[in-house]
Amino acid sequence: MAMEQEIATVGQRLEEMLTGNALQEAVDLLASVHPADQADLYLSLGTPEFRETFLSLLSAEGQARLLEHLDEEERGQIIERMPRASLARVLDRMENDEAVDILQELPPAEMARVLSNMTTASEIAPLLEHREESAGGLMTRGYVALHKDMTAREATTFLRLRRPFAEEAYYLYVLDAANRLQGVVNLRQLIVADPDTRIEAIMTPEVISVAPETDQEECARLIQHYRLRALPVVDEEDVLRGIITADDLMDVVRAEATEDMYRMVGLDVRESALSPVTTALRRRAPWLLVNLMTAFIAALTVRFFEDTISKVATLAVFMPVIAGHGGNTGTQVTTLVVRSLALGEVTLGDTMQIVGKEVVFGLAHGLIVGLLTAGLALSLSHNGWLAGIVLIAMLGNVIVAGVFGTLIPLGFRAVKMDPALASAIWLTTFTDVIGFLMLLGTGTLLVSKLT
Amino acid sequence: MAMEQEIATVGQRLEEMLTGNALQEAVDLLASVHPADQADLYLSLGTPEFRETFLSLLSAEGQARLLEHLDEEERGQIIERMPRASLARVLDRMENDEAVDILQELPPAEMARVLSNMTTASEIAPLLEHREESAGGLMTRGYVALHKDMTAREATTFLRLRRPFAEEAYYLYVLDAANRLQGVVNLRQLIVADPDTRIEAIMTPEVISVAPETDQEECARLIQHYRLRALPVVDEEDVLRGIITADDLMDVVRAEATEDMYRMVGLDVRESALSPVTTALRRRAPWLLVNLMTAFIAALTVRFFEDTISKVATLAVFMPVIAGHGGNTGTQVTTLVVRSLALGEVTLGDTMQIVGKEVVFGLAHGLIVGLLTAGLALSLSHNGWLAGIVLIAMLGNVIVAGVFGTLIPLGFRAVKMDPALASAIWLTTFTDVIGFLMLLGTGTLLVSKLT
Repeated sequence: MAMEQEIATVGQRLEEMLTGNALQEAVDLLASVHPADQADLYLSLGTPEFRETFLSLLSAEGQARLLEHLDEEERGQIIERMPRASLARVLDRMENDEAVDILQELPPAEMARVLSNMTTASEIAPLLEHREESAGGLMTRGYVALHKDMTAREATTFLRLRRPFAEEAYYLYVLDAANRLQGVVNLRQLIVADPDTRIEAIMTPEVISVAPETDQEECARLIQHYRLRALPVVDEEDVLRGIITADDLMDVVRAEATEDMYRMVGLDVRESALSPVTTALRRRAPWLLVNLMTAFIAALTVRFFEDTISKVATLAVFMPVIAGHGGNTGTQVTTLVVRSLALGEVTLGDTMQIVGKEVVFGLAHGLIVGLLTAGLALSLSHNGWLAGIVLIAMLGNVIVAGVFGTLIPLGFRAVKMDPALASAIWLTTFTDVIGFLMLLGTGTLLVSKLT
Repeated sequence: MAMEQEIATVGQRLEEMLTGNALQEAVDLLASVHPADQADLYLSLGTPEFRETFLSLLSAEGQARLLEHLDEEERGQIIERMPRASLARVLDRMENDEAVDILQELPPAEMARVLSNMTTASEIAPLLEHREESAGGLMTRGYVALHKDMTAREATTFLRLRRPFAEEAYYLYVLDAANRLQGVVNLRQLIVADPDTRIEAIMTPEVISVAPETDQEECARLIQHYRLRALPVVDEEDVLRGIITADDLMDVVRAEATEDMYRMVGLDVRESALSPVTTALRRRAPWLLVNLMTAFIAALTVRFFEDTISKVATLAVFMPVIAGHGGNTGTQVTTLVVRSLALGEVTLGDTMQIVGKEVVFGLAHGLIVGLLTAGLALSLSHNGWLAGIVLIAMLGNVIVAGVFGTLIPLGFRAVKMDPALASAIWLTTFTDVIGFLMLLGTGTLLVSKLT
């Protein structure tokens, strides 16, 4: 069972040991804790001194495991203070892809110095040239390769004697003399095969693979679509460059979903509900100020009709209904389109179909809510003209909300920007301005009927 | 490489074959296509007749693979029309957990009939009693179990001769005579071990496991936290009941993230951007009507101050700024809290800390945006009182937005409801009503200074 519920208790015991200088006891305690929980334990410690001592109790191997389970920010703080020689030793013991992530965050000169102290430098260096969000940036060299002309017996002996280190030890990749990917065989196929069969005969020759520059979202989609454990990365000559493991892509899937949600409302992905206030201010303020400026546009629209409002104040009563309902209707559509784009369910080619659907939806839905709102107007004012104006404004704004709700994210995608980019903020500006224009504009035209 | 880009082309070729009755050609074509792509191909076919013929070209095995790659809705349509005896044959060939999902969607009497025709009935029946969203509902019996007293050689021979069918073939679960989980050994450890070692000596004895009633979100969190490929499910006596594989949980992670986004704005998780209009109406209408009713509450708040507005129409200009900015500020907070709860980063115990943070944030942010809006008021009206009212209303509403933005999702969680449940809709009602109350209420008190 997971021990994480007890982190706080264990953390206290550990602090007591550290305070009492019972270091051997502390080492023994840590040895019994899974690295993922060690990370939580580390974060639960109260002072920088405790954390410092905690780190010093771990071997380079132990530090490597710990770093793999911390998030970027905490990891960065540890690495900053770590002597460069120790860092090289720790990185040597990490998974390739994680070591690359850490190296890429260092200033170039320091990166070169650390790399030159690493025994795995030759393996790591080629991985450094790729974008972090691409297949090349995610891939690791921790795979096992077999030659296609080996027999099953030779392959088994190779595994037994060489015990190659591998993150992915179930899929074995089959290469030819030029390291070109020929197929894949799994350990189970190897075990059940006749020992004299050649690997080429038992391997699966069609392997789904990606190029180093393939985007990580596409990799995640492929690994889910075909239900794979790992995805090989090959260059234009079909030479195997590395593999991406499913667990790294699970992180991508979760992070991308959070990103979509956050971006829609102008949040920074690195923020959490417990981030300090100053961080929150720095990160949220830019979009909130953009939002304020767009609200000013809505205000100036209303300002234009101030005269009408002073004559027919009842119009102001319906401003929040028309604008608010348009905003909510449109936000639903935007959410749907953003997520459907992310899941690969729709493409730009579907634009007209979605717009058409949302117009029909807006007509039906707008008629229902327009009539309900007109009913409220009638019961408040006993003026049929006001009811009619409210109906038209609601119907019109709901249709506009559906159309813009579709076009904003698809438009961002068309110009290769993030479809989620603060789309909720842009959308509500449109629905506010257009709702007010229709409500107050029609009201101004018919002002004589309303007073 | 993936062939999915060519689905449309291949689909056309297939339709031509089916029209020309070139069935053997069609069978050959299908044999060269991955089941995941067969599913896309199936969906690309234009008429129900083509789809019918497509299905008839597949073996029971092929139909099982196809169903595993279709989504719930499409799958349901195929199963409805399938003769019950064929369905039993197909389910026999599916992964346990998927077969259980399908059986659970059938009416009880039919489920019993289909089950009685299945050769795997004894394996499936115990899985049927669990909730679909629990570990028990996700687990499969497709694992390989070894006895702890076997030697590595015996285990290898067992695998070679018995070739047990397994979804998870890398982790081998080690049981005692009473089927209690004792440890886990992976194929790699087995291959490199001395053939005479007992399994007990090479296995990892600490296994992270869950109970059948553990929620799927918790399972997903554990598998990510500990970076596992599979998670064993054990009952209170430690007897191994099944395993959950990482790929099933990746679907859970993706689905839960989408669910959070959708629920926040009152969307149904089953909707996609391309769902038909009638489906959209049926699914979106309930929450949009709730939203309309809450907007009516905002309208009635404004109605209460109609007299003030007719005297000072400029107040109406600032209604959308105050209400809108409060809504957007609060939505950011709600999004953050909903997602942080889902990722397990915060719990109910953090409530006061988050509220405190958001109050401080609201004070700082509200002061900035309040002063900017007051500046606009001053430049439009040259009335210092109006500017003051606008400042107070903005500051107050931004703080309220932060507090309610936190309390709405945490409140839902406290009463064991979904924190995301249309939280955006509730929140904007609060920010509208309270924003109007502060703006128009203060305006009414000071109306003599404004005219």
